[in-house]
Amino acid sequence: MTATPRTDRSARQPLLSLSLDPEGPLPLHRQLYQQLREAILGRRLTSGMRLPSSRLLTQELGISRNTVLAALDQLTAEGYLAPRRGSGSFVAALAPEPALPARQPTPRPEKAATLKPSGRSRQLAVSAPQRLVTGGAFTPGLADHREFPFALWSRLLAKSWRDPPAALVGPGEAQGHQGLRRAIARYLGAMRGVVCAPEQVFIVNGARQAVDLAAHALIDHGDIACVEEPGWPGLRGTLAANGALLVPVPVDEFGMTVASGLRVRLIAVAPSHQYPLGVTMSLARRLELIQWAKRSDAWILEDDYDSEFRYGGRPLAALQGLDEEGRVVYVGTFSKVLFASLRLAYLVVPPELVDIVARVRPSLDDYPSAIAQPALAEFIDAGHFVAHIRRMRRRYQARQEILLDAAGRHLSGLLDIEPCAAGMHLVARLGRALAGRQDDRTLSGLAAASGITAPALSSYFHGPVGAQGLLLGYAPVAEDEIEPAVRRLAQALGAARQG
Amino acid sequence: MTATPRTDRSARQPLLSLSLDPEGPLPLHRQLYQQLREAILGRRLTSGMRLPSSRLLTQELGISRNTVLAALDQLTAEGYLAPRRGSGSFVAALAPEPALPARQPTPRPEKAATLKPSGRSRQLAVSAPQRLVTGGAFTPGLADHREFPFALWSRLLAKSWRDPPAALVGPGEAQGHQGLRRAIARYLGAMRGVVCAPEQVFIVNGARQAVDLAAHALIDHGDIACVEEPGWPGLRGTLAANGALLVPVPVDEFGMTVASGLRVRLIAVAPSHQYPLGVTMSLARRLELIQWAKRSDAWILEDDYDSEFRYGGRPLAALQGLDEEGRVVYVGTFSKVLFASLRLAYLVVPPELVDIVARVRPSLDDYPSAIAQPALAEFIDAGHFVAHIRRMRRRYQARQEILLDAAGRHLSGLLDIEPCAAGMHLVARLGRALAGRQDDRTLSGLAAASGITAPALSSYFHGPVGAQGLLLGYAPVAEDEIEPAVRRLAQALGAARQG
Repeated sequence: MTATPRTDRSARQPLLSLSLDPEGPLPLHRQLYQQLREAILGRRLTSGMRLPSSRLLTQELGISRNTVLAALDQLTAEGYLAPRRGSGSFVAALAPEPALPARQPTPRPEKAATLKPSGRSRQLAVSAPQRLVTGGAFTPGLADHREFPFALWSRLLAKSWRDPPAALVGPGEAQGHQGLRRAIARYLGAMRGVVCAPEQVFIVNGARQAVDLAAHALIDHGDIACVEEPGWPGLRGTLAANGALLVPVPVDEFGMTVASGLRVRLIAVAPSHQYPLGVTMSLARRLELIQWAKRSDAWILEDDYDSEFRYGGRPLAALQGLDEEGRVVYVGTFSKVLFASLRLAYLVVPPELVDIVARVRPSLDDYPSAIAQPALAEFIDAGHFVAHIRRMRRRYQARQEILLDAAGRHLSGLLDIEPCAAGMHLVARLGRALAGRQDDRTLSGLAAASGITAPALSSYFHGPVGAQGLLLGYAPVAEDEIEPAVRRLAQALGAARQG
Repeated sequence: MTATPRTDRSARQPLLSLSLDPEGPLPLHRQLYQQLREAILGRRLTSGMRLPSSRLLTQELGISRNTVLAALDQLTAEGYLAPRRGSGSFVAALAPEPALPARQPTPRPEKAATLKPSGRSRQLAVSAPQRLVTGGAFTPGLADHREFPFALWSRLLAKSWRDPPAALVGPGEAQGHQGLRRAIARYLGAMRGVVCAPEQVFIVNGARQAVDLAAHALIDHGDIACVEEPGWPGLRGTLAANGALLVPVPVDEFGMTVASGLRVRLIAVAPSHQYPLGVTMSLARRLELIQWAKRSDAWILEDDYDSEFRYGGRPLAALQGLDEEGRVVYVGTFSKVLFASLRLAYLVVPPELVDIVARVRPSLDDYPSAIAQPALAEFIDAGHFVAHIRRMRRRYQARQEILLDAAGRHLSGLLDIEPCAAGMHLVARLGRALAGRQDDRTLSGLAAASGITAPALSSYFHGPVGAQGLLLGYAPVAEDEIEPAVRRLAQALGAARQG
């Protein structure tokens, strides 16, 4: 096609409908670029058509020549325009495929009906735990962040980043910041009976990433993993995402039972304070569990859930410290002890696994962010961590007592609640006025409608529901907020009894 | 077994061999607890045996009675000791299984030979990219962190955590901090031609987690994923970890080629600046690629690698902006632009995928850490981010020119290097003195021995090696360090020519 005045004019028509807005959020050259590009993609300007000269565009649009040239240069660089020496710019030949429809700034048109997410994404979404973001009474598994010393935390963060050493700023180690790993190994040895060197510690973003990392190193598609029933849905979801076949194993009053005959690849267990039931595994059961793993040649994934908050005696030593053969990978987290959005946790692996886990670690997210690690290391080393645990332990113990007392006065007949020597929540079974009449999910919904978070015990079961009840997390509820919340809950449940 | 003086004495013998160290790292009660526990587990103290009284232990060990009681209480709480009223403490009956060997404080005894990591962990470890932690000349893909305004960064961090709002401290959104998502959506729309609302943005820890998240939502075990050949090994490793079957597709001078006949589930591509070759995908190829995806009903994973650093013209608009059907999930990262250990990146998904991705997100690590997000949002909103990119773009462009100039003087015949209009590294092909004589991995090793990081091009191939060369990252090397490093590299390679 040759350049004629007619072509020139036909190209001008759509251009004159361009509308540039000097007050708009984008610079003028960017606006011009985008509108010309849309015109080309929408075939309002077709292949071979000559564009008006930059001088003409400058006049027509009332903008500077540099602005016009910037837009044309960009379109040329991207292949929308093809310059010919001395003849200006021509619309380039685009793909051999049929024309694409014009780009609309409106919402996206409907997509092909066959374009679907993965099959497992639906399964993962179903097994994802109920998001508990309210933070109010009685959210389980949530620390009281109002008690955290943020002014100190802010100073530690600022100090560690004002003039950071090169090692902190460049690509980090797959295992995380060495100072923090040292602090964790010391803490775990002294307080949890965990036998480990800093080299065995991997810093991760939360307990679920610890499980994900362990599963990458230990689980192949189709491997059998035993999980507690009822248990933490997050653990199940992450193991399932790694292709594990989940076998739920009942929990009794001594902890997870032992399915001796079953040969499995991995046994996932929370012996310190089983979630959600709150059982602490007996020593005898711990030893049986290790024997089972030995016979089955299985790995043990120990989730040391809530071990920090024990009100009767000292916290029990971890299963990891009983393990003679390097079968236990150990998971702990800071988010439950300090504040939720910190997202720092750790996986401790046997020495024989360090190398393979370090090499698998990058397939998750390369290595952990350095931003919070040095501040947390100093927080631990200077004693603030243990002091915080000690202070919160007293607070949470008092809150559990207040909750039990208020429940005795207001929830009698509705919920039966036993005290628990550890943790941040209590399990309330349905009392005689509700048991057999109401489903715990219905009751949880009624509580939610009254502004009270109280997850249904049945939602923690993988297989058939073996028990009904409500979880009441007392940790994040201030002392004087507990009784009013219990009264609101009693009202909501009382209505259910009559309904 | 009854308590007799004989039993008492037999129990005393091993106890007298206890050695408590008042200067040791653990408190005395903890030392006593651990040593008694080891004696019980090692059957030096056997079931039913009576322990000496706390008074006697106090005398024998020369420590306070409270210390002794603390240790005995803990052992009792954990089930190692059973108190009988008025008769002191007895060693409890442990598991019905045969005795465990005694716990040694020495390194762990050998484990069962059959206890193995997962099969895929070996594959993942092999496909993991070479760790490039030196940070010196010529590490590719690494920003120059010496230019980052850390004093400002430290102030922004401190400010955001001094007195944080409850929403920042409690459990966060699966998608990340809203302010940061807004800032990203604005930046991407203005600078990258990405059409998205903040609701489509997911904050993640690095580009690999973005790929992992996309793969969770889009890939099932056994699905075919096309990847660029050569390409980013990290992407391949993470897709493989998700069960994808990888099909490498050659890259030519217009970018990834189009394997039209192949029906695939996902096409992973880096159109802005292909890694490692540095090719920018032509517009025609982009449109062909979208057509291929359409015919194949495939998803496109766009890694907008290095798009920020373009020296000729403006950065090309992203593929995402050409997509009419919501097929493109888009990955970008801050770690390459600001500093490596920040670990913040983002995934932008089509509106139709937001819900499923949000529900799958927790199976990775619940939600991203809040620590750096508000500071980064303010860094972007206040204009520091774009200013930093602009400053580093000038710097990196100058560094590429210095590298080309020095290479022309010192590497002639050894390496052939072409300039590149974008990115942070150059690809050097083997020159006539080396081509066909030396393997690029050998040369990379020689360079490393001289303190120069220069990864072998062949290590980026998934299938048969299609090209040999070295990658030279100039971004993290100060202007006056480039020529000396080139001379060291020339010396190392010159020796290879003679060898």
